[in-house]
Amino acid sequence: MGPHPAVAAIRLAVRRVLHDILTDTPDTPDGPLVLVACSGGADSMALASALAFEAPKLGIRAGGITVDHGLQPGSDLRAAEVLVRMTALGLAPVESAAVTVGREGGPEAAARDARYAALDEAAQRLGAAAVLLGHTRDDQAETVLLGLARGSGIRSLSGMAETSGVAGRYRRPFLQVDRQTARKACMVQSLPVWDDPHNADPAYTRSRLRHEGLPALEKALGKGVVEALARTAQLSRDDADALDSWAAQADPTVRDDTGLLECAKLYALPPAVRRRILRRAAIEAGAPAGSLFARHIEEVDRLITGWRGQGAINLPGRVVAQRQGGRLVIRQG
Amino acid sequence: MGPHPAVAAIRLAVRRVLHDILTDTPDTPDGPLVLVACSGGADSMALASALAFEAPKLGIRAGGITVDHGLQPGSDLRAAEVLVRMTALGLAPVESAAVTVGREGGPEAAARDARYAALDEAAQRLGAAAVLLGHTRDDQAETVLLGLARGSGIRSLSGMAETSGVAGRYRRPFLQVDRQTARKACMVQSLPVWDDPHNADPAYTRSRLRHEGLPALEKALGKGVVEALARTAQLSRDDADALDSWAAQADPTVRDDTGLLECAKLYALPPAVRRRILRRAAIEAGAPAGSLFARHIEEVDRLITGWRGQGAINLPGRVVAQRQGGRLVIRQG
Repeated sequence: MGPHPAVAAIRLAVRRVLHDILTDTPDTPDGPLVLVACSGGADSMALASALAFEAPKLGIRAGGITVDHGLQPGSDLRAAEVLVRMTALGLAPVESAAVTVGREGGPEAAARDARYAALDEAAQRLGAAAVLLGHTRDDQAETVLLGLARGSGIRSLSGMAETSGVAGRYRRPFLQVDRQTARKACMVQSLPVWDDPHNADPAYTRSRLRHEGLPALEKALGKGVVEALARTAQLSRDDADALDSWAAQADPTVRDDTGLLECAKLYALPPAVRRRILRRAAIEAGAPAGSLFARHIEEVDRLITGWRGQGAINLPGRVVAQRQGGRLVIRQG
Repeated sequence: MGPHPAVAAIRLAVRRVLHDILTDTPDTPDGPLVLVACSGGADSMALASALAFEAPKLGIRAGGITVDHGLQPGSDLRAAEVLVRMTALGLAPVESAAVTVGREGGPEAAARDARYAALDEAAQRLGAAAVLLGHTRDDQAETVLLGLARGSGIRSLSGMAETSGVAGRYRRPFLQVDRQTARKACMVQSLPVWDDPHNADPAYTRSRLRHEGLPALEKALGKGVVEALARTAQLSRDDADALDSWAAQADPTVRDDTGLLECAKLYALPPAVRRRILRRAAIEAGAPAGSLFARHIEEVDRLITGWRGQGAINLPGRVVAQRQGGRLVIRQG
């Protein structure tokens, strides 16, 4: 008799990613090291169990790391407990990293920044070929909706990548696995899991989305919403990549000898490509990508498509865009 | 003292579109005729009032048409009432068209098909330069979410176009105007409006979305969601148009002398462009566009990106895709 379907599903997802990692990694005498980032929650405990099971069969060493964000009393004890659980699964080495969460960008972003810095450091120091993250299809759906709320175009709809970070260090094997499957896999393997109270705290946007927004959307639109959102992420990512590459190729063809953008040539491009070139130019001039919204780029675009002698346009990062003699000048003022 | 801000907003929106129509329309002795499609609801009554106010100033004749779907008892009386209201606004000619709603594609799609057929017929017969439709920014947001639920990519996220139909007949001046503004404009102009009970009927997906899904999403993500969804529609439309044009240009470059698709050349294209070419080829071979989902195209794509000798793939409309000697053969079986 084979394993429970939920266990089979998580193992298959991990096996696929481990195969990819082996293909991408140079041969080492002891085999490559793959770490799992584990909070002790159901998703990452399921991931840890699947990694511990699959890695040895492929000659891969499997380790684990847990991050203590220090945001709740007793978080150090919890981290110690996760270490014990990872060791019990057969992972080695296992480590816990205590971090200090700042305030920049809000509580969720600050915690994320601190977490990835700790994971980067550990992966670097231990020479890990990859770090597996437990984000599920449900997390992906939530991320797409968060991007949708920004209204800033298809890049923000493309969610989390299967592979990201320096040299593709981070891998997300569970982006096609739903949260329920991960939870079920823990249950049938008798793995104790920890429910982070933050995940149910309505002070967090993601938590409100998870417990109210997405269920209401499913009630209105049907059960396939999470899957549809995850597929939208993948399609949007491919589309955004293609359009970015088009913009990068077109960019030099719409500049004069001095490197200034020529309005007539920009005008002839499809709007989607033109706006991406304008965005690139604004960022190159010093506008912070995170503060540059679609409405900014639309306003710059009107210097080309709706020219009626309007003045200079102020962009974030003290960048100024203006039209001068058929050229677009975008620079820090 | 100028008009109430809500009235000013709806008039400005209509004025802009009428200017566009004048630019696009050849001169006629009596001036062009523009019709409003009016259900008697707040959105289209606001639109009718703004058209009646703005058209004469631009030398445009303003008429109206209401469609009696025959789905509720007394719908013929309602249509007669809307005729009276449109006449009171100064619209001429005004007409009501009784249609028979079929069943194809579900109740909402069938009603829409019947409605547009009647509007097309009237516009044609009366020689109208354009038909204005009262869809608001809220309708657009709902349409984007409905498209999102299909999970079929950015074309389905692009909502309704500002201009659509044969020769751009249909115009939607209110896509940037919210429903509340339209309602307010009716109120301050003392225009009676009719609330279609279908709009509150939870049997309809759109109604559930309007009354439950979208409010819950706003509660989780903040008040800007409707605006963000509407902006996503516009950006997605431009992106989808650009990628479609890229695919159309690339299509002949990846075919051999006999017109068959060459797998090696397809492989070299960005996935977003390649999948659009595959989709075009499937439709050209006879697959109905509406039944062709992202997962179908993904499966055909694996003949190119994940070739391991798999067999023919069945697509809707009895279309079969198979790989033969480095070529992709897509034809009706």
